[in-house]
Amino acid sequence: MLVGKKHFRTIWRDKDRPVLHIIDQRHLPHNFVIEELHSVADVATAIKDMHVRGAGVIGVTAAYGMYLAALALPEKDMDDDLFSAADLLKATRPTAVNLAWAVDRQLEALRKGKSREKKIEIALQTAEEIINEDLDCCRKIGSHGMAIIDEISRKKNGAPVNILTHCNAGWLGFADYGTATAPIYLAAENGAALHVWVDETRPRNQGASLTAWELGEQGISHTVIPDNTGGHLMQHGMVDMVIVGTDRTTRRGDVANKIGTYLKALAARDNNIPFYVALPSSSIDWNIGDGVGEIPIEERDAREVRYIIGLDESDQKVKEVLITPKDSKAANYGFDVTPARLVTGLITERGICEASEEGIFSLFPEKHDQK
Amino acid sequence: MLVGKKHFRTIWRDKDRPVLHIIDQRHLPHNFVIEELHSVADVATAIKDMHVRGAGVIGVTAAYGMYLAALALPEKDMDDDLFSAADLLKATRPTAVNLAWAVDRQLEALRKGKSREKKIEIALQTAEEIINEDLDCCRKIGSHGMAIIDEISRKKNGAPVNILTHCNAGWLGFADYGTATAPIYLAAENGAALHVWVDETRPRNQGASLTAWELGEQGISHTVIPDNTGGHLMQHGMVDMVIVGTDRTTRRGDVANKIGTYLKALAARDNNIPFYVALPSSSIDWNIGDGVGEIPIEERDAREVRYIIGLDESDQKVKEVLITPKDSKAANYGFDVTPARLVTGLITERGICEASEEGIFSLFPEKHDQK
Repeated sequence: MLVGKKHFRTIWRDKDRPVLHIIDQRHLPHNFVIEELHSVADVATAIKDMHVRGAGVIGVTAAYGMYLAALALPEKDMDDDLFSAADLLKATRPTAVNLAWAVDRQLEALRKGKSREKKIEIALQTAEEIINEDLDCCRKIGSHGMAIIDEISRKKNGAPVNILTHCNAGWLGFADYGTATAPIYLAAENGAALHVWVDETRPRNQGASLTAWELGEQGISHTVIPDNTGGHLMQHGMVDMVIVGTDRTTRRGDVANKIGTYLKALAARDNNIPFYVALPSSSIDWNIGDGVGEIPIEERDAREVRYIIGLDESDQKVKEVLITPKDSKAANYGFDVTPARLVTGLITERGICEASEEGIFSLFPEKHDQK
Repeated sequence: MLVGKKHFRTIWRDKDRPVLHIIDQRHLPHNFVIEELHSVADVATAIKDMHVRGAGVIGVTAAYGMYLAALALPEKDMDDDLFSAADLLKATRPTAVNLAWAVDRQLEALRKGKSREKKIEIALQTAEEIINEDLDCCRKIGSHGMAIIDEISRKKNGAPVNILTHCNAGWLGFADYGTATAPIYLAAENGAALHVWVDETRPRNQGASLTAWELGEQGISHTVIPDNTGGHLMQHGMVDMVIVGTDRTTRRGDVANKIGTYLKALAARDNNIPFYVALPSSSIDWNIGDGVGEIPIEERDAREVRYIIGLDESDQKVKEVLITPKDSKAANYGFDVTPARLVTGLITERGICEASEEGIFSLFPEKHDQK
């Protein structure tokens, strides 16, 4: 998508050198920083320390990390080095499904390369396959979701469609386009009048710092709101639809997404507002039915609640400030589960379906046969 | 309540000098600052610039402001000076119902004072009546609400009762005790095992900065949580009841309270958790039935969303940092309305009633006759 009117993806390979470039998201929204990654160790650090975050981009970055590992291979004992690189990458974010998947796919493909040169060629090709699949998937989600926005736009006779989103399921989390944002970007490109309510998404403020930044760079009208605000807006007809992403969806359509998503789904239901979840099918966990009961919820460091990072405009430095009493405890649950009964529909790369076992298997019948 | 193990109210008169003392809440939770007010102008500034905030304490402070005005009266044209003082005070927070009510009550009482000395005596007596009524009202709310906590405690065989609260309806907002916190403080004094989930309450963070501080000073177990968290906790049986305050309640029991309250009420309903609102009957607006349709919601400065204040521990200075992109807009609605259907009960100074016209008039029959 656009940054300063120039097109970017979240990761790209240098044409002339064995180097990857990523957008170091830690500095957003105050500074746009491009980082060079020269080795698999650099890639591991970038993933572990969240220079990149978001399911898609983590997978793609890890895949390119294996390409850097191949470039660094010695002439012998190559497999040992590849396994070490894979272990290093997989250990960075142990719960990231896409990460392990991308690394394992590289390892599987690399088995066919018998020479160093062949391994480099395979690793690059596999990384490019993975990034292209990510792009294709997000574009398709965008296209299916855009149809929903267009329909609301027609019903409103072209008046701006007000969309509320939570957290960042934007292009920064994928190679490009994003999931929840893809329908928004495509609809805007096609001329739909839009306005996005951006939940700031405490405690890490991915909405205020990433989604708002993305939308601003695309020139899309948006307003940042405290997470407390959405219910009031919905009560007063100021939200036409909600679109969020998901970290994990059960086969029955329960959706684990950033903490607070469930509260917005309740408000949407109470006010008859459609609540959609955009997702690549790779995030469906086919083994789990009951999300609330079965999905373990990560508890993160309480420090993320007690401190907040922002820009001190008096000296233009980014600082961390304490916002609770120094002796108060805090709790930091990363996700909550929105039961399928509150979800209007799932927007996948194959189309839109009801959030139910029946709905999901109607789009992915091959998964049904595997049960 | 306790601050550093010493008992305080939010406002007190100096024994020897014509001076009021208030707790300047702007510095909490990082610094405990007592401010001296020497004149009605000082009082007006303290209310306008939110050194004191909260319905009860604003009314009490304004009442004592009229006492300072009486102390400063000349020998003649006294009424002119009193009216000027009243106008000055009432203009500080035009929508604060208790403020105008306290000032008008002083003016009415002062009409009976024919000399300067008599006016001083009446102003002091009226201010003391108002503070005592505030104390009495909060104590009664505490006592009625404590019965609910005790019942849950019995059902849990004495295991800690987990109470979630939003914003600050604590003693800092009244002369002492608070409304939503009064049942908590009384139950804790009586030995009940308790734990309080404190919504941080963006954008102004009254939960993280005031409620958490209050509870910490009383030694009550509490955990600060992002506003996004309550739904998840309720889904997992980690909340036994919700108690919040209210700025304005309609005669049908709709409750206008800090933005985000409605979302917690929805989650409580979805998980069968009792949701109580604690209020002095002075905050009931007898003229309004439908809260969502009829209560105007204050839109505050977007700056309160875009910037956040906290303590930079590197130099122990309180700083303001920007948390959104510099060009992103923000919206800042101060309140939302929780429909009566989501409220389990109203805890008033006369007892607990259903959140309905019938319930409210059963406790306040004299208001019914006035309709």
